[in-house]
Amino acid sequence: MPDQKDKIWMQRALSLAEKGLGYVSPNPMVGCVIVSKDGDIIGEGYHERYGKAHAEVNAVRSVKDPEMLKGATVYVTLEPCSHHGKTPPCADMLAELPIKKVVMAMQDPNPSVNGKGLKILREQNIQVDVGVLQDEAEKLNEKWLHAIGTSTPFVTLKIAQTADGYVAAPNGDSKWISCKESRKLVHRWRSEDDAVLVGRNTALHDNPQLTVRLTEGRQPKRVVLDGPLELPKHLNLFSDSFEEKTIVITHNKKKAEQDVDPMLKMLQSNYFRGELITVENDSGHVHLRESLSKLYEMGIHSVLVEGGQQLSSALLRQGLVERLQLFIAPKILGGGTKSIINLNINRMEDVRPFRDFTWQQSGSDMLLTANL
Amino acid sequence: MPDQKDKIWMQRALSLAEKGLGYVSPNPMVGCVIVSKDGDIIGEGYHERYGKAHAEVNAVRSVKDPEMLKGATVYVTLEPCSHHGKTPPCADMLAELPIKKVVMAMQDPNPSVNGKGLKILREQNIQVDVGVLQDEAEKLNEKWLHAIGTSTPFVTLKIAQTADGYVAAPNGDSKWISCKESRKLVHRWRSEDDAVLVGRNTALHDNPQLTVRLTEGRQPKRVVLDGPLELPKHLNLFSDSFEEKTIVITHNKKKAEQDVDPMLKMLQSNYFRGELITVENDSGHVHLRESLSKLYEMGIHSVLVEGGQQLSSALLRQGLVERLQLFIAPKILGGGTKSIINLNINRMEDVRPFRDFTWQQSGSDMLLTANL
Repeated sequence: MPDQKDKIWMQRALSLAEKGLGYVSPNPMVGCVIVSKDGDIIGEGYHERYGKAHAEVNAVRSVKDPEMLKGATVYVTLEPCSHHGKTPPCADMLAELPIKKVVMAMQDPNPSVNGKGLKILREQNIQVDVGVLQDEAEKLNEKWLHAIGTSTPFVTLKIAQTADGYVAAPNGDSKWISCKESRKLVHRWRSEDDAVLVGRNTALHDNPQLTVRLTEGRQPKRVVLDGPLELPKHLNLFSDSFEEKTIVITHNKKKAEQDVDPMLKMLQSNYFRGELITVENDSGHVHLRESLSKLYEMGIHSVLVEGGQQLSSALLRQGLVERLQLFIAPKILGGGTKSIINLNINRMEDVRPFRDFTWQQSGSDMLLTANL
Repeated sequence: MPDQKDKIWMQRALSLAEKGLGYVSPNPMVGCVIVSKDGDIIGEGYHERYGKAHAEVNAVRSVKDPEMLKGATVYVTLEPCSHHGKTPPCADMLAELPIKKVVMAMQDPNPSVNGKGLKILREQNIQVDVGVLQDEAEKLNEKWLHAIGTSTPFVTLKIAQTADGYVAAPNGDSKWISCKESRKLVHRWRSEDDAVLVGRNTALHDNPQLTVRLTEGRQPKRVVLDGPLELPKHLNLFSDSFEEKTIVITHNKKKAEQDVDPMLKMLQSNYFRGELITVENDSGHVHLRESLSKLYEMGIHSVLVEGGQQLSSALLRQGLVERLQLFIAPKILGGGTKSIINLNINRMEDVRPFRDFTWQQSGSDMLLTANL
């Protein structure tokens, strides 16, 4: 049974892990705390950035005197890796230390690890405890867990609407429905998810930048669905300083082939430096499920959708949304573009209940966070 | 300057006044506390029911020993009346007492009183202070103040919608969008306002009772707009035990005349025992502003509208709503009847901001209360 001390150290490790948010994907966030046999913290570390050292390595490196590792306990929020990836396996590294015990919050469900890290440690007579603050650890990496479990990114759908459910005025304008605080929150989410996704209409009519500006943080990939591959190249997504972070998904394979022809590209004065993905045509639109699968294959584990009515509704209708973030502004329009349409629900009994939800105020707006 | 003691006694008088909520209209709520020259409460009272004794009378009656009134102070939430209404003028009654002072929260803006009660008291050398907790007193009687100031009832519009702004599923069903707690709150509001109002469509499709059932309280008048005067008589509003509380408003004057013909009524097996009002025809609908004026003339000072999309939207469009009570349920329909339409707003800049608003949770729903 874990004692209170175990929980305190693990909580510290979880806090460290969270510092990697936005920077470690497609890896999970991991934190590590090393406690001496006398009960003092002698080392700390977390996975700071994808491709850089793992949490365990950073924690061991931070220990001033290797002598202190004798009989120490290592707290780590995830099972140490057992495979050679961008870095050597952490389980092997830890197994060679004179430590007494490793406490982990959860096993790594990744098939290339799952239980193997644990086994390596136990074979070296290091005591291993699993499950301290497991719920918290799973919550921390819920998007990563969803992604590796389903081979699909965790999709968060953000909608900002009026109290009566409109996302744009009759003249098409949507600036601004939500308040400054809400827009700031969305910028923070952009910095935390791997990619932001919009549809063709939004790209064309709002010409968004989809960058992080109202807060500090990492710029996300920007995905735009452009079935016919006809969006004009002067849009911000194709011409600003983050151009190479833009991914276009199209079903127009013929045009896409021309677009990636290096000779043709050279001849264009201002060719697109981002990525282009082709998927199947689904009744005139890009195939959404396939699009998400391809994004996952590119290492995108979480997507924030900031689309308009058509894209939001299609994703909900196809059951591709994990979390809805619905901002409701205290104003009424009485007309314009409805937020959500065509879910094929006819009766109240057919409404699909949310798994869980919370209401919270965001500036003058109300934010409904619902897990589907 | 009022001292802290004055505020404490006046707060007590306001609390007493509030007990009359739902029972005193078209009179205002009034509470009264009498404090002896030694600083003890010697009498309390409030206006309990329309047509019964006023607050001041009840308070004076409650004083055990008239001797104690010598040098006492009377705290009353509204200027004592100076006119003979259902009861003799309270100002005259107080002026004859051996009291030293009358403290009132506010003057009565009613032209038949405004300042006259105050004058009667001062002429008898009774000291009069005005304005202690005036804001609270005005808030308490805000609906009454609105009504007598505009000769129109205070209109509260209640809407219960899904998070995406639908008030009914595509099949027309709206039972139940809001949660039990929210419906209970609406029943409480019914007991507090003078009348509940619905349109023809709601009466026909939902066949509502519009009574107070989920909580204790006074049954309100029930107003139904029936332009052509063709709603079937078997509806709850015309056939249940509160039939005489139903008011029908029509623009079909010809049919209305037939309906009130006593001979024709006698011939009907089950004639309507409620009231019938005729107003002008406004593009095929009953004239809303005129309907409200006529309700005011009948002594209805506050109306809770529980209409559907058409009535809600028409009232908002015509600027006839004072307060919006919008329940937002944590569910999405993606289709059906929108809550609010046709406000003639084309651009975001044309959105009319609320005077003020609050968000509060009501069971699992969110309630937006907005003053227009």
